This record gives sequence, C-alpha cells and structure tokens, in this order.
Amino acid sequence: MPVIVQKYGGTSVGDPDRINVVADRVVRAREEGYDVVVVVSAMGDTTDELFAMAQEISAAPEPRELDMLLTAGERIAMSLLAIAVNARGCKAASYTGSQAGIITDSKHGQAKIVDVRPGRIREALAEGKVVIVAGFQGVSTTADVTTLGRGGSDTTGVALAAALEAECCEIYTDVEGVFTADPRIESSARKLERVTYDEMLELAAAGAKVLQLRSVEYARRNGVPIHVRSSFTDEPGTWVAEEDESVEQALISGVALDDEEAKVTLEEVPDHPGVAATIFKAVAEEAISVDMIVQNVSHRGKTDLSFTVPRADLPRLTGVMDRVVADIGAHGYSTDAGIAKVSLVGAGMKSHPEVKADMFDALATEGINIEMISTSSIRVSCVVRAEDAHRAVQAIHRRFGLDGSDAVSE
Amino acid sequence: MPVIVQKYGGTSVGDPDRINVVADRVVRAREEGYDVVVVVSAMGDTTDELFAMAQEISAAPEPRELDMLLTAGERIAMSLLAIAVNARGCKAASYTGSQAGIITDSKHGQAKIVDVRPGRIREALAEGKVVIVAGFQGVSTTADVTTLGRGGSDTTGVALAAALEAECCEIYTDVEGVFTADPRIESSARKLERVTYDEMLELAAAGAKVLQLRSVEYARRNGVPIHVRSSFTDEPGTWVAEEDESVEQALISGVALDDEEAKVTLEEVPDHPGVAATIFKAVAEEAISVDMIVQNVSHRGKTDLSFTVPRADLPRLTGVMDRVVADIGAHGYSTDAGIAKVSLVGAGMKSHPEVKADMFDALATEGINIEMISTSSIRVSCVVRAEDAHRAVQAIHRRFGLDGSDAVSE
Repeated sequence: MPVIVQKYGGTSVGDPDRINVVADRVVRAREEGYDVVVVVSAMGDTTDELFAMAQEISAAPEPRELDMLLTAGERIAMSLLAIAVNARGCKAASYTGSQAGIITDSKHGQAKIVDVRPGRIREALAEGKVVIVAGFQGVSTTADVTTLGRGGSDTTGVALAAALEAECCEIYTDVEGVFTADPRIESSARKLERVTYDEMLELAAAGAKVLQLRSVEYARRNGVPIHVRSSFTDEPGTWVAEEDESVEQALISGVALDDEEAKVTLEEVPDHPGVAATIFKAVAEEAISVDMIVQNVSHRGKTDLSFTVPRADLPRLTGVMDRVVADIGAHGYSTDAGIAKVSLVGAGMKSHPEVKADMFDALATEGINIEMISTSSIRVSCVVRAEDAHRAVQAIHRRFGLDGSDAVSE
Repeated sequence: MPVIVQKYGGTSVGDPDRINVVADRVVRAREEGYDVVVVVSAMGDTTDELFAMAQEISAAPEPRELDMLLTAGERIAMSLLAIAVNARGCKAASYTGSQAGIITDSKHGQAKIVDVRPGRIREALAEGKVVIVAGFQGVSTTADVTTLGRGGSDTTGVALAAALEAECCEIYTDVEGVFTADPRIESSARKLERVTYDEMLELAAAGAKVLQLRSVEYARRNGVPIHVRSSFTDEPGTWVAEEDESVEQALISGVALDDEEAKVTLEEVPDHPGVAATIFKAVAEEAISVDMIVQNVSHRGKTDLSFTVPRADLPRLTGVMDRVVADIGAHGYSTDAGIAKVSLVGAGMKSHPEVKADMFDALATEGINIEMISTSSIRVSCVVRAEDAHRAVQAIHRRFGLDGSDAVSE
C-alpha cells in the first residue's frame, strides 16, 4: 500500500473537538487505501506553557531537562489522537520520537536527525494500524530525549516520509497554503498552487512562517513532495516540490516580511583582512545567527559594517559587541530595533534582471527608504523602517501583479 | 554513600513554588551525605485532567494509548524538579520509568513490576548526580509504556529503594503521617510514630489513603522501611517497618473509614456447593474486586449472600448480576450504595479477644446498627449506614483511648 505522512500543527489538535475532526480525516485517508503515518505537534499553546513554567523555576533551565519537559506536549496530543482513531474502529498506535526511531545528535533544544530507524512503525503498518508519532522530538545516541527546535514537527514529518518512501508529506496547518503575501497584510494575496523547494527555502528564510526551514531542506535533499494545506477545509493547498520543467516558471512567487530582526552597525571599523572574521566569530560563539551583512566601501581605511540579528538576541549581543569594538579598534556601535525586512522571491527572477530594479522603484514610488539590500539568485531583500513594512509589502505585491492582475506590465 | 529514596506526591509538586521547596529538601539530603533518588507524581490534578480529556474523546479509551497519555504528567513534574535542583548548583538528571528500568507486564492501567534494572540510575549516582524518576509508570516487556494504577508512584519509590538497597523510602505527602483516625473526622486523632507492615496493609485495605496497598506489600516482601511524612514540615512522620520485638505492641493503631463501597445482596440463593464460586468468578471476570463477603446460615436450603464492591463499579456489576441470578436460580438481588465500612486495626489485637466485643459495644452505645462484620487477626470491620460513619469512627476512637487518654479502661 502507498504510504502517506500527515503532520498536524498545534492549532489543528488544539482541543478534543479538533482532535476528533483530525481523527475523521485520518480514517478517511486510511479508507482511501493509504498506510497512514500521522505526526502531531503539542495541543495549542502547551509547549509555550511548559516553557513558561521552566522559566519560572530557572532563567537558564538545564537543556537536557528542558527537552524532557517540552516533549510532554506531543505525547499528550498523540495519545489523545490514537484514542480518537481507535474509537472509530480503526486500529491505531502512538509512538514517541524515541519509539519511532528518530535518532538525533545530543544538541539539546536544537538536535539534528542523524538517522531514522522506523522498525516499529513498519511493523505496526504491516499489522494494519494507523501510526501516530510525536513530532519535534527524538532520542540521542546516548539515549536521552532531545527536541528538534521550533517547528521541528515539520522535520519529523518529512524525515519519516523520506524513510518510509511516502507518496508525500501533508502539512496541515491553520492557513490554506503558501500565499503571495501574508493575507493579513495584503488582502488580495493569492494562494500558490506550487512552489519549488528553493523558493520555499527563500520564503522561509525571509520570514514566511508556514514551514520550518530545516524541514524544507530535508525534503529537498530527499525529494519528498510537501503538501501544505488547512486542516479546516478539504481544499488542496500548496505543493512544495522540485521544479517542474514542463511548466513555465512563474516570475515571482511571493513577498515575505520578517519583522523580528534588528540592525547592528559597527562604526569606523579598520578595513583590513581578518576583521570581519573576528566580529562574526564572536557573534557565532554566542549562538546568535546573523542574517544580512552589508559593508560599505571604506574611506581612509575605515568602513561602516551593518548586519541583522533576531531582535530577541539583542540583549545578549551587547556584551559581545563591547568586546568586539575594543578588539578591532572600531569607533563604536549602534543598534536599531525599528526595522523590518521585506523580500521578493521567485525562481523566474534568475533570467529577469529587471525585477530588482522594479522592486526598488516600487518602494521609491511609495516614498519608502531602503536601508540595506541583499540578494540571492531568486530573492531580493530590503531593510526598511518597521512602520513602512506593511505599505512596502502592499506596494511590491501590487507592482508585480501578484493578486492575479497584470500590473507587472504597466 | 548510603542511598535514600524520596517520593513526592502530586500536592508536594503542585506548582513551581512547591517544586522549589522540594528542590531545597532534595539538595539538603544530598548535603547530608546521601545518594538521593527522587520519585515524583504528576503535578496536582494533572492526571485527572488528562483522563477527563481522554473521556471526552472516548468513553472507553484504548488502554495502551491511555497509559501513554497519563504518563505525561510525571514527565512534566520530574523535568521541572530536575531543572530546579540543577539551578541550585546540584547536578540532577531525570528519567522516565522506561529509562529507569522499571519493567512491567503488559496489563495496561494496572501493570505489575516484574523487574527493576536500574543501570542508568546507578551510573548517574556514580557521577554524583541526584536522580529524579517519573513515578507510576514503567515499560512492558514489549516496549510499550505502562502505568501501575492509582497511587502507583508509591510502588515505584519502594521498588527503586529495594533494587538500590536504600536505607529507606521516604513518602512525602500532604499529611503528617499515619493517624489513629482521619483528623478531619476525629479532631483528637494522633499521629502514629510507627506501624507494622501488617497493620499498614490492613489500614490501607480498610480505606486509609496514605499509602497504596501494593507499595506496602512490596516493602514488606523486600524489607524496605517506609517513612511517611509531610513535605510541608520538617517533623518526622510515621515509620512503616517490621514489628520491633523490643517494643511492647500497641493494642490498637487506628480506625479507618472506607466510604467508597456499596453492598450487594443476593436473595434466596440455593445453598449447595459451587454456588459461591459461580458468583464470584463472574464478578472477577469483570475485574471488579470484592471486599467483604457475608453469607448467613440457610433456611430450607436457601440463604442470603451479601458482599461489598467499589461503588464506582456498581453500574458495571448490574449486567453481571442479572446473569448470575439466572444461572444460580436465586430469587433476585439488591444493591445499596448508602453504606460505609469502619475498621479497627491493631497488631496487639491478636492476644486481646475482648477488642472485638468492645468495638461492637461502642457502636451499640451510640445506637449505630451493624449490617455486616468481617475480621482478620489484626482487624475488625463493620458495615454501617453511611450517615452513621463519622459518629462510628469517633465513638470507636474514644472507646479505645486513641487520643492518648485512658478511656479504654473506663
């Protein structure tokens, strides 16, 4: 029988009623002739609530213990769903990450999957059971419980789909798919039928929260088609898959907004080899991930250097920067939390160099100043003032005709 | 280093503040020179809440899945406590029942421990860590998660104490120890310094809820001293241990009340061999446990037969009794949920036959009618009307001078 993996997010299993709805859908897939493997997140805000309790006890909870704590939410959701599926006369059994054979390294809180050994899952499927697996968690090679980081259940789903050679991995969420822009910001945003892995990676990196970045990487590496769809409707969602050569590439797939970053500027940095390495090694040692980096041309052997980091990491960054400024002999540094990053993503961009200029022009026409720019072959990102962010998304969306009109040819 | 096992109940770890108080106590035991193994229950009413969610989804939840669900509570409590102990600079690691080597049979919901393999616990202790273990749960020989039944954390604690040859198992609870009667019913009830395993077994069977019956059996079989005490004070509680020959046996240790039973009476049962077997085999097949059984002498080949069962099992019993009445040719049956069982327990009773008569007299003096009687060598139990139960406890407590006065000699 073909295997299908279905992953349900926290909202989809938020209460017993929602769990019953999911159970109906699972049974339906089984009746359609699939071997069904279901991956569940924790119910609603359970994980946040558990984390808050840990914080109440310690500002820096022991990572091994925090992982053990946070995995309780998925255990609750998976066994309730297994109870619901069994109650419908359809045999089902639930498995923790450990029981499902999700083997990870020992980096608690951000573990990486190093192997998938789905022996028990295959046995249960062979016995005709629906298999339900706790997302977000695994077991380390030293037999400790680990978690895969925020949104890790997506990765669990994709990893199981790859190991079981599933037809696809369905990701059920509270939105209907991947959109040309956040519909809450741009009401004319359209649902995309299909995006490539590369586009989805750029969208995720640019702030689109539909899928965890790592899960898309994992899917691309293993050729697992992902179907992002809503658990509240039966409508098809968005397929994330390889480029389909037979279909002409859309120029642009969407506009993404990341409003959770901050900008840091080092002033009058001596411009000689090794300086950038010193700076970003120090930042990396604090496990703070840097997104955009922009260095201007130097004047009289000095240059300004700006980069963006998650806003939440700003307090931790301050100590690092004080040391860095002294080490490299810079004049000083400033931070700016009032920014947002607006990105345009599209695989067709590769062969249309005018896209970048069009985007800058769309912002200029709206009187929006661009503070930083970075590009890849299929993405352009601009840092703007936070208060301009929504207008920027709307202007770009309109300019490229993403609402389905033909505005791009204007 | 000597090993001590400390078990904390749900109230003791009911919220982050209480968990911090427990962590202080754990660190203190460590500083006193013990290797400390801590067993925790789920926080407050977590287990009941999880059970209620399962019931919302299915009236008869799949037992394997229900066990997986219910074990989440202990996981949360143990990792929070481990975070709290680590935050005090004292290394600690938490382990699920499975990781701790609590091996059980496969009877979900009421699994029995068949082996304890505390390899990882010994390793962690050798590394100088405080070990925290999830109570109430184990792993079956087929690698499924199981639970040990209500109050099973006590058994986890005693089983680990036995396997690790601990000095004792401390059971921390929300009462100060074992009392001569429930202090909420009889305000002059005294805390007992010491009771024997046999007395504690009788008290537990008679309705005292301080310790799970199975944990006391396990402790007696393995000679593990239990110290029942409050997590809210530093006062010593009650020791449950072997009879101490050097100390003169107290006549009576206490009065217990069980107000969760119901009485069933089969009327005009044909009095010939095999009838009782037929009845109680049918009841046992429904996994309903029978407590007292009383059969009167027969008249003209017929007799009435009464027994008590947990009141909660009464609905399930009805179907059984309809069949039994037909099978054995009885006249009919009646049920009575308005009863209570009052028991007097004391090892010294063995050599003082007058105790039984004194108890009946105490009830008679209060005008309380006795509906059923059953006795063991160290216990007398009487079934009375539920509304007389508290007065019965008080009368017996007073008659035997359990408040410390000498009323017994009146």
